[in-house]
Amino acid sequence: MSPSLLKVLDGENLAGLGERMHRFAAELYPICRSITGAGIRQTLAMIGERISLEVSEVPTGTAVFDWTIPKEWNIRDAYIKDSHGQRVVDFKRHNLHVVNYSKPVRATLSLRELQPHLHSLADHPDWIPYRTSYYREDWGFCLSHKQMLALEEDQYEVCIDSSLEAGNLVYGECYIPGRSKEEILISCHVCHPSLANDNLSGLTVATSMAELLSGRYLRYSYRFLLVPGTIGAIAWLARNRETADRVRHGLVLTCVGDAGGFHYKKSRRGDAEVDRAFAHALLHCGEPSEVLEFSPYGYDERQYCSPGFNLPVGCLMRSVWGTFPEYHTSADNLGFIHPDQLSRSLRLCVSACDVLENNRYYLNQNPCCEPQLGKRNLYRSTGGESIDLEINARLWVLNLSDGEHSLLNIAERSGLPFSAIGDAAQLLLENGLLAEAQRVPEHAKQE
Amino acid sequence: MSPSLLKVLDGENLAGLGERMHRFAAELYPICRSITGAGIRQTLAMIGERISLEVSEVPTGTAVFDWTIPKEWNIRDAYIKDSHGQRVVDFKRHNLHVVNYSKPVRATLSLRELQPHLHSLADHPDWIPYRTSYYREDWGFCLSHKQMLALEEDQYEVCIDSSLEAGNLVYGECYIPGRSKEEILISCHVCHPSLANDNLSGLTVATSMAELLSGRYLRYSYRFLLVPGTIGAIAWLARNRETADRVRHGLVLTCVGDAGGFHYKKSRRGDAEVDRAFAHALLHCGEPSEVLEFSPYGYDERQYCSPGFNLPVGCLMRSVWGTFPEYHTSADNLGFIHPDQLSRSLRLCVSACDVLENNRYYLNQNPCCEPQLGKRNLYRSTGGESIDLEINARLWVLNLSDGEHSLLNIAERSGLPFSAIGDAAQLLLENGLLAEAQRVPEHAKQE
Amino acid sequence: MSPSLLKVLDGENLAGLGERMHRFAAELYPICRSITGAGIRQTLAMIGERISLEVSEVPTGTAVFDWTIPKEWNIRDAYIKDSHGQRVVDFKRHNLHVVNYSKPVRATLSLRELQPHLHSLADHPDWIPYRTSYYREDWGFCLSHKQMLALEEDQYEVCIDSSLEAGNLVYGECYIPGRSKEEILISCHVCHPSLANDNLSGLTVATSMAELLSGRYLRYSYRFLLVPGTIGAIAWLARNRETADRVRHGLVLTCVGDAGGFHYKKSRRGDAEVDRAFAHALLHCGEPSEVLEFSPYGYDERQYCSPGFNLPVGCLMRSVWGTFPEYHTSADNLGFIHPDQLSRSLRLCVSACDVLENNRYYLNQNPCCEPQLGKRNLYRSTGGESIDLEINARLWVLNLSDGEHSLLNIAERSGLPFSAIGDAAQLLLENGLLAEAQRVPEHAKQE
Repeated sequence: MSPSLLKVLDGENLAGLGERMHRFAAELYPICRSITGAGIRQTLAMIGERISLEVSEVPTGTAVFDWTIPKEWNIRDAYIKDSHGQRVVDFKRHNLHVVNYSKPVRATLSLRELQPHLHSLADHPDWIPYRTSYYREDWGFCLSHKQMLALEEDQYEVCIDSSLEAGNLVYGECYIPGRSKEEILISCHVCHPSLANDNLSGLTVATSMAELLSGRYLRYSYRFLLVPGTIGAIAWLARNRETADRVRHGLVLTCVGDAGGFHYKKSRRGDAEVDRAFAHALLHCGEPSEVLEFSPYGYDERQYCSPGFNLPVGCLMRSVWGTFPEYHTSADNLGFIHPDQLSRSLRLCVSACDVLENNRYYLNQNPCCEPQLGKRNLYRSTGGESIDLEINARLWVLNLSDGEHSLLNIAERSGLPFSAIGDAAQLLLENGLLAEAQRVPEHAKQE
Repeated sequence: MSPSLLKVLDGENLAGLGERMHRFAAELYPICRSITGAGIRQTLAMIGERISLEVSEVPTGTAVFDWTIPKEWNIRDAYIKDSHGQRVVDFKRHNLHVVNYSKPVRATLSLRELQPHLHSLADHPDWIPYRTSYYREDWGFCLSHKQMLALEEDQYEVCIDSSLEAGNLVYGECYIPGRSKEEILISCHVCHPSLANDNLSGLTVATSMAELLSGRYLRYSYRFLLVPGTIGAIAWLARNRETADRVRHGLVLTCVGDAGGFHYKKSRRGDAEVDRAFAHALLHCGEPSEVLEFSPYGYDERQYCSPGFNLPVGCLMRSVWGTFPEYHTSADNLGFIHPDQLSRSLRLCVSACDVLENNRYYLNQNPCCEPQLGKRNLYRSTGGESIDLEINARLWVLNLSDGEHSLLNIAERSGLPFSAIGDAAQLLLENGLLAEAQRVPEHAKQE
Repeated sequence: MSPSLLKVLDGENLAGLGERMHRFAAELYPICRSITGAGIRQTLAMIGERISLEVSEVPTGTAVFDWTIPKEWNIRDAYIKDSHGQRVVDFKRHNLHVVNYSKPVRATLSLRELQPHLHSLADHPDWIPYRTSYYREDWGFCLSHKQMLALEEDQYEVCIDSSLEAGNLVYGECYIPGRSKEEILISCHVCHPSLANDNLSGLTVATSMAELLSGRYLRYSYRFLLVPGTIGAIAWLARNRETADRVRHGLVLTCVGDAGGFHYKKSRRGDAEVDRAFAHALLHCGEPSEVLEFSPYGYDERQYCSPGFNLPVGCLMRSVWGTFPEYHTSADNLGFIHPDQLSRSLRLCVSACDVLENNRYYLNQNPCCEPQLGKRNLYRSTGGESIDLEINARLWVLNLSDGEHSLLNIAERSGLPFSAIGDAAQLLLENGLLAEAQRVPEHAKQE
């Protein structure tokens, strides 16, 4: 068995860890990230100071399945000046003010000419929306609706000092080897600019998780993938088909810092071991949670779960993207994510990994009738009284260890937490009452 | 793909269509139908003026499975006269007054001798019940309970001027050829006398549906079967075993004109494609509805779903037979059925046929990762905003088009209406992103 | 078909039978039973006066799977005397006062030295708890909490006049042969001292059931097993592996006399025929009931359902052990069990046996369309009226008798009681409309 990662984590100061995660999110927050360019490079460099990160570059124009790596985008400045020379919209105040991937522009326009290039939210007049135009060359500004309404008839000087040129798309990988070459994939999109829940929360949880796993005695190898959304996942899949074949379980991690309860979206398969591991971890985590069916819209599980790959990759969120008003606006800021939520999201991921690390099939070595636990000091001492959780877990493991039920099956059927089932199996193993079954796990059959 | 029949129907004036259907029911209403005889011939002739109908005759005495075609029944007059010569019960006022299939009688009887031959409803004193005696030679009268209670001690002259003689059982078939010889069967019983919901409603909906389908470009061939209940369906099955083998989907249509919500009773198989098509159509029809499990009692699905045939034939009703008080009484009259209900029942059947006509398996031609919809103008133009139903449907079709999921599967799993899924598939097909899978449908394997 | 045992039982005076069962429980109540010794021998002898019982003896020291038959325990007297010579705790007043299987003790102890050997219930100060120490040599007394609080500082004379010596473990079997050597196993633990619901209730119901079955024309052979809990079931299984292979259905019977509704705990298989038979019987028994999932803790189903046997053995209870406060205390006395509950528990078991005795597969001999029931006088006489339960049952049996659906399947799917389905099948069989299918039942495949 692998040692419990949860026990390691719970041995730390979780509150302090949450504060450190939030501080790291605060360091990353001001950077203007996009799917290519300096912002994402800088972000990967900062993460690379904490965990071992290999950064790959894919040149503009490279074909990746049905897609092509776009030009690299960089931006230095952007503003709208009124006729008095005042910057009424200023990229330097907030990087959401410019439509991400805007092509360079210098022009003087009337309000009427400018308006088709402006985006605001009438329902939330103080917030700046987040908009992008990666694959159609265009430009625009996002501003609060109050700013929008304050614009008067005028001639406006518009400047977007950006570049769209041949370059590279970059992504980062942190690989932590385990005893097996079979992998657990944790994927986060790293392309969003100053948005905290989406997805600095995912990046900080993934970074802390990689820090925790590094150097441990692990069953699986772990791969943390920090990729620009959609195109990054597609590029990685196109360039790593053999590695993808080794992915046994996977998770997309996003929106895990807000105050909402957990939502786990199942993989396309719907009954993958990772789906069951997370459903189990959520059931016993003590927080409100919901398990959602797969749908083909969302984050990069769209690509991992495309029919040609159909990888067992789910998605963990707290509030579901698109359902909270702050989503894709300037209100998704550092105050919207909380140290405690970040550390508890990490804790949940770790408890699900404990399940995956230790889920095995065993054979009861005394299958005919119960073995006499009492003579091995594994039972209560006085008859007639009720038994406790630990003895109950032992009876469940013995009864169902016929080579057909994994420990996760047993935890599910008994309603007991996997940790209790795993501890019982370990004790019975040490007492010679169990042996590991030679059963080939389901996923291995697919190779 | 077949063009959407629903779009054709919705292009018409549905309200006007409902009115015409109700008027046709009104023309058929006064006829005294039975399982044989002049009434059913006249009814088939009137329907044959609207749709192409082939009428078959099966002679009295013919063995059809365990049954024998009975004598042909015809009736001219029937009454009970009191000693003053007054007709106190008169067939000419309402054809329900005589027990259907009564043998000829001429007698003078005391009230006490007459009583065993009288049927009334104490709970509904103004209504005349509907009773039959097809297979046991008998005679009787049905009358309102008020009439019953008004009968005084007297000598009554009883006359049933009927005949029970060697003749023929008749039924009608309207066959509309499609591209395939595989058939969709729509069956209605045509034997009930002046009862509107049961089953002039079914006959008018079936007639209008046949009118709509005639001359269209159809995937399936359609067979509308207008048969006397039980014996007619049995006779048809006994004489058309090869045709029965070609039935891929089927429906018994009855009680579809009253004000109640829809009830679809599943076929014996329970998960036939027709069962799922109707469940889907009902879910999205905007009316209250319920899907019922199969039971071996009911209408002619009893015969189609007998174990030797086990055809995938369900039954559509609004209110379920036997559960509404007007059932099998004179209160099931033209006021009990409504133009709007008739046309909306037709609309529901048509929407289920659209599912069956267009349900296929496709293969995503870019199965690894999503194809880039944006470069084909099949995606939203600005990133960061939410997507609409149409794009969502495209993502679902692409994700599940692995040759294992039909469009109906995809509609079920996505929760989207089949029409949206079908339109998405058509568009993706036109853009070269899908190809039809060579998957043999389930039902074909049985041949 | 086997004649209905339920009809036989219902022909008797059920109230009188319940009274007789309760009186028999009262006769057995005072005996100090344990897993070995004189009490269990006496109990088996008294039951053997009513049913044919074969008693087996297994010597101390015999290995039975992972266990060893313990020494035989007998007890003559036990008490705690205060310094005035008063018996403050006296085994002769209630046999629960001594910890069952206490080794012999004679000592004089201070209250402080005595206390670790005393057991009481603070929450129920008038009740004496039931405690045992079968497999760890120890001694102790159980007393009411009031008695416990009344003990003053004193020197107490402690005497347990018991013996723990080489001897035998005994168990009883009542075998009732049927037409087949396949067996139905009914198992009760017979080791509890003066506790009424747990398990004199089970013993009296089993005894009455064996009385009822003896000499009947039965499909299955029945084996009633009266064994000391755990070690007795293990000993029987170890010595009767071939017989165990012939067990097709089984039941552990306990706690069936109290005022609670029924609880049936499913076998480890979860969908065994016995599980479905009891679920069906409960659904139609007219009492509140609940079906519980299997768990590996409980009574001797723990052994029968161990993975090396995995026998289809469920457990019937009224209130579930451990959930009612009287459980394992002196309050589980004769007033806690009721004549009516005992006889109705018997009735339920008998109705489930009727299902197992008569559950078969049939073939409709007229599978194409319905056979004409009317010409065989198996249908209503007047058309247009509704049909009754009996005709409905005939239609269900005909429709589903395709060799794939057992009568129990048909009862489950139709929602009709098995008795109605069985009667319909019998009548249809007599009319030549059914033939028995040559289908080998599921359980036979395992041999």
